[in-house]
Amino acid sequence: MSVRVAHTITEVRALVAEARSTGLSIGLVPTMGALHAGHGRLIERARAENAFVVVTIFVNPIQFNEASDYTAYPRALDDDVAFCEARGAHVVFAPSVQEMYPRPAGAFVQVEGVSEPMEGAFRPGHFRGVATVVAKLLNIVQADRAYFGEKDAQQLAVIRRMVDDLNFPVTIVEVETVREPDGLAMSSRNRRLSSAERRDALALHEALEHARSLVAAGELSPASIKARASAIFANYPAVRPEYLEIVDPAGMQPVEQITAPVRIAGAVRVGAVRLIDNVLARPPLQLDTVTSTGAFIEKPERMEEK
Amino acid sequence: MSVRVAHTITEVRALVAEARSTGLSIGLVPTMGALHAGHGRLIERARAENAFVVVTIFVNPIQFNEASDYTAYPRALDDDVAFCEARGAHVVFAPSVQEMYPRPAGAFVQVEGVSEPMEGAFRPGHFRGVATVVAKLLNIVQADRAYFGEKDAQQLAVIRRMVDDLNFPVTIVEVETVREPDGLAMSSRNRRLSSAERRDALALHEALEHARSLVAAGELSPASIKARASAIFANYPAVRPEYLEIVDPAGMQPVEQITAPVRIAGAVRVGAVRLIDNVLARPPLQLDTVTSTGAFIEKPERMEEK
Repeated sequence: MSVRVAHTITEVRALVAEARSTGLSIGLVPTMGALHAGHGRLIERARAENAFVVVTIFVNPIQFNEASDYTAYPRALDDDVAFCEARGAHVVFAPSVQEMYPRPAGAFVQVEGVSEPMEGAFRPGHFRGVATVVAKLLNIVQADRAYFGEKDAQQLAVIRRMVDDLNFPVTIVEVETVREPDGLAMSSRNRRLSSAERRDALALHEALEHARSLVAAGELSPASIKARASAIFANYPAVRPEYLEIVDPAGMQPVEQITAPVRIAGAVRVGAVRLIDNVLARPPLQLDTVTSTGAFIEKPERMEEK
Repeated sequence: MSVRVAHTITEVRALVAEARSTGLSIGLVPTMGALHAGHGRLIERARAENAFVVVTIFVNPIQFNEASDYTAYPRALDDDVAFCEARGAHVVFAPSVQEMYPRPAGAFVQVEGVSEPMEGAFRPGHFRGVATVVAKLLNIVQADRAYFGEKDAQQLAVIRRMVDDLNFPVTIVEVETVREPDGLAMSSRNRRLSSAERRDALALHEALEHARSLVAAGELSPASIKARASAIFANYPAVRPEYLEIVDPAGMQPVEQITAPVRIAGAVRVGAVRLIDNVLARPPLQLDTVTSTGAFIEKPERMEEK
C-alpha cells in the first residue's frame, strides 16, 4: 500500500478518523523533514507499536529564533515521502505554513523551568514554538503514541512536561539517537556541513564522550568535568562551543554534584551550522537514592536505559 | 439514572470512554461550582445537543490573582451535584487541587492579544490560568462540544482563540447570560453580597444598558458613550468601577469608532466582591461593511445574534 500525503488538517483528520473507526492504534512521528536514519528509527518504532503511522513534515517557523536558520533549513519533500513509504508509514502530513498558521499565532504553550537553560537560553522562544506546534499536531492527529528522538533531549523533556501538565491523552515515546559510524549524531543540519566542517563537527561528540567517561570513572564534580571535556574544543579552532552542561534528565536543571544518572548536553557552531548532542552518563554506583542518614543505597538496575 | 461523581482523572476518563464506545456524543460544561441558573442553562443546552454530559466543578487556583478571592469563592459540592442531577447531567467531575496539579503547574497556555485588555489588565495572570485549566479539561474529557457563558465574554474569546490556534478537536458553544428579574447577571459571587450591596450591584447593569441604548440611538463615539454611561456610577457611592470598555467582539480590543456590533464590558467592586458583566450593542445600521469609497452598505441581517 502506498503512503497517503495530506496537505490539510481536514484531510489528515479524515484519514486518521477512518483508521480509528476500524479500531487501529495511531502512532505520530512529528518531524521537520529532510529525513535521515534517526527519523527512520522513529518511524520503525512507531510501526512496531501501532497499526497506523502518521509522519508529519513541517518546518515550523515559530520555533526558529534566527531567520537565516529557518531559510537554510533543508527541505526535501519528495525524498521524504519516498523515505516514509519505504518504512511503511501510512500517512505523511505535510501542511503549508498558511495551513498551520492561517493568521499570526496568538495562543502559545509555554513550559517553565525545563525550557529555560541550555537551548532555552541560547534560542529565545524556541521551546515555546516547539511546544505550541507539538500541541497543535497532537490535537490534529490525536494519536495514541508520539515518537521523539533522544538527540533533542531537552525538547523531549519540554514535551513530556507539557503532556503531563496539560493532560494530553497521548503516550510520549523516546527513541535513541542514531549516529554515523564515527559517532556524529544524525541531524538534518549535517547536510549543510562542508567536508572540513563535517570533520570538525565531531568535536562535540568527542567532548561529550570524554565527559561521560569521566563520570563513569567516578568524577562527580560537574565543574571539573565541564572544564576537562571543554578542553577538547581547543583542538578544533573552527568550532565555537555554546555550552556544555550537566543536568538532571527530567528537569534539565544543572546539577551541583553528580549523585545519579545525568544528561550531558552541548551545542556548538561549525561555520554557519549549529549542532546539538547529548549523552546519558552514570556514576559508577547508582547514587540516586540517598537515605536520610546520608548513606548511599546501590541500585543495581539501570534507570532510563534505552 | 443518577449522576455519577468522579473525583479522579482516571475515573472520569473511564466514564467518558464507556459512553464514547457506545457512540454517544459528549458535552462538557466546565464550571467552578456554586451553580446557579446561568450554569443551568449551560447544562440544558449541553443536554439538548449531546447524548452524554459531563459537568466539571473545580475552583482553579491558578486563575485567581487574589488569594482572598480564591479562599472566599463559594463552594457547595453537595448542592451542585443535586443541581446537575436534576438537569440530567451524566457525570460530575469534581477533582481536588492535588489531582489537577500534583506538582506546581509548569506548562501554561498563554493567549496573546485577546487576553490583554480589561480583565487581563486588572487580573494579571488570570487568563493564563483559565486557558491552562480549560486545556487540561478539554484533554481530560475529550468532549465534542464545550459550553461557556456569554457573561464571561472575554474568557470566551480567549478560549475560542486557544481552541482555534491550537486546533483542539472541540466545538465551543456560547450560551447567553441569565439575569435576575432586575437585570443583575447571575454569578456565583452574588452569594457574597449583603442586601445593601445587592442593590448597589445593579449599577453595572444599568451603566451597560445605558451604553447600549446610546449605541442603538446612533452615538458612535466610544469616549462619549463611556463618559455618559460611567456617570451612572456617581449614583452608587459604594460601587467602585474598574473599567467600562467598548471592544470588538472577537478580538476584545477597544474600538476607536463604532462601525459594527461591539461588546460593552465592565467590572466593578461592591464591598469585597468584584463583579463583571457585558452586553452586545449594535449601531442603528449595520455599518460593518465599508466600501473602498467610504460608503456604508447596510447589512439587514443581525450578526452574532444569540
